[in-house]
Amino acid sequence: MEKLSINKLKWIRNLHSKKFRDSEGYFIAEGEKILGEILDFNPASIFLLVCTQESFYKIKQHETIETYIASPSEFERISLLKSPQGILAVLKKPLSESQFFDLNKSVLVLDNIQDPGNLGTILRTADWFGISQIYCSTNTVDCFNPRVVQASMGSLFRVAIKYGDLSEFLSQQKLPIYGALLEGESCYKSKMKLNSILIIGNEGSGISSEIINKIQHPITIPRTGHGESLNVAVACGILLSQWRKS
Amino acid sequence: MEKLSINKLKWIRNLHSKKFRDSEGYFIAEGEKILGEILDFNPASIFLLVCTQESFYKIKQHETIETYIASPSEFERISLLKSPQGILAVLKKPLSESQFFDLNKSVLVLDNIQDPGNLGTILRTADWFGISQIYCSTNTVDCFNPRVVQASMGSLFRVAIKYGDLSEFLSQQKLPIYGALLEGESCYKSKMKLNSILIIGNEGSGISSEIINKIQHPITIPRTGHGESLNVAVACGILLSQWRKS
Repeated sequence: MEKLSINKLKWIRNLHSKKFRDSEGYFIAEGEKILGEILDFNPASIFLLVCTQESFYKIKQHETIETYIASPSEFERISLLKSPQGILAVLKKPLSESQFFDLNKSVLVLDNIQDPGNLGTILRTADWFGISQIYCSTNTVDCFNPRVVQASMGSLFRVAIKYGDLSEFLSQQKLPIYGALLEGESCYKSKMKLNSILIIGNEGSGISSEIINKIQHPITIPRTGHGESLNVAVACGILLSQWRKS
Repeated sequence: MEKLSINKLKWIRNLHSKKFRDSEGYFIAEGEKILGEILDFNPASIFLLVCTQESFYKIKQHETIETYIASPSEFERISLLKSPQGILAVLKKPLSESQFFDLNKSVLVLDNIQDPGNLGTILRTADWFGISQIYCSTNTVDCFNPRVVQASMGSLFRVAIKYGDLSEFLSQQKLPIYGALLEGESCYKSKMKLNSILIIGNEGSGISSEIINKIQHPITIPRTGHGESLNVAVACGILLSQWRKS
């Protein structure tokens, strides 16, 4: 355990940017809860750990993990939280071979999800319902964004995630393709096939016009009240629950 | 439209604290999307508006609303977002008479929800599914917290919210009481009565031991995958969708 050097601080701060994460192959996980889970279940993925003096004693110590102490003001510079919790780890990205997709199994397709908290929550929900393959449009937020990592609560390590051209990906599919739209069959009545594809669209604009014609079965969540809309992670949770309950 | 004075800046900054919001009767809403909705549907609730020069032209102008211009660094001091969007309003709290509860109608009961984003998302989902009465334990995060306001997307103005002692509130109820637990009847099989009470517990620890004995019908969301847990707003969304689909 030693003091965090200015060079390491700058290197960690650079990992806030996707470009730098891509070139270095590392990403950040932040906060007591998520790090507790990683230290318990995935300690080998940790490259280094940074704590403030105050937070150092809150976490389980691993002798084999490089640990650095930062002052509160140094910590604020590497943190992405408005109220930093004083605990942050740099993790190795999983190898791309571990991102193998089985094309006979269900895939959740995400079209342009922008909010990191939403993507993280969607990963966590998919993991709960046993959807282990997620295909994201290239304009979807990076799954190694620190806020995605935090909201995913460890599920990031258990689901295979790929980024690419949705139109091309969907053209190769043989499984039935469902899409969440404002108009469609009620999700409570639709008999969604267990092995199939489900497309969820952007927070504000839904599924993009370029891929809307790939949807074979439009499904919707009927509104029984007055709200304007549902949060996309909640909508995805409701649809996944309907899909996997059978 | 004039420059934001240092006194007004301090007064707005004080509204970050629940105590000050309670004594003044005002609260903050922040961000382009939520303010767009308030300006469209509820402009009378706005007491004053603060924008940066750059953001001023992004919003619909109302001549009758006091509008102040802040520099980016001033704006950062009143904002609660890590990336401030340059638009913030101070709103009048609704009168407590508008928080009338009809005891023959469904109530969603929240026990110690801590994360403002979760509470806001739950309000938005309740509004979508037509649950218009929400009763929160006194240790649940304040519904006028700026992050709750942002995540609720305007639903805060459409649902009646009360805070109080859950044990006492539940003792007075004549409707059936359901509670979300890790063990219970599957929510897909449970025939939840349309007029009933549903209790949702804390993010980490669930429903507190003091009120667990008030639950007449424990219900659960069966796990079909490997995830550790569900986000509480997603779990609430799945249960509300099962409850209201009938």
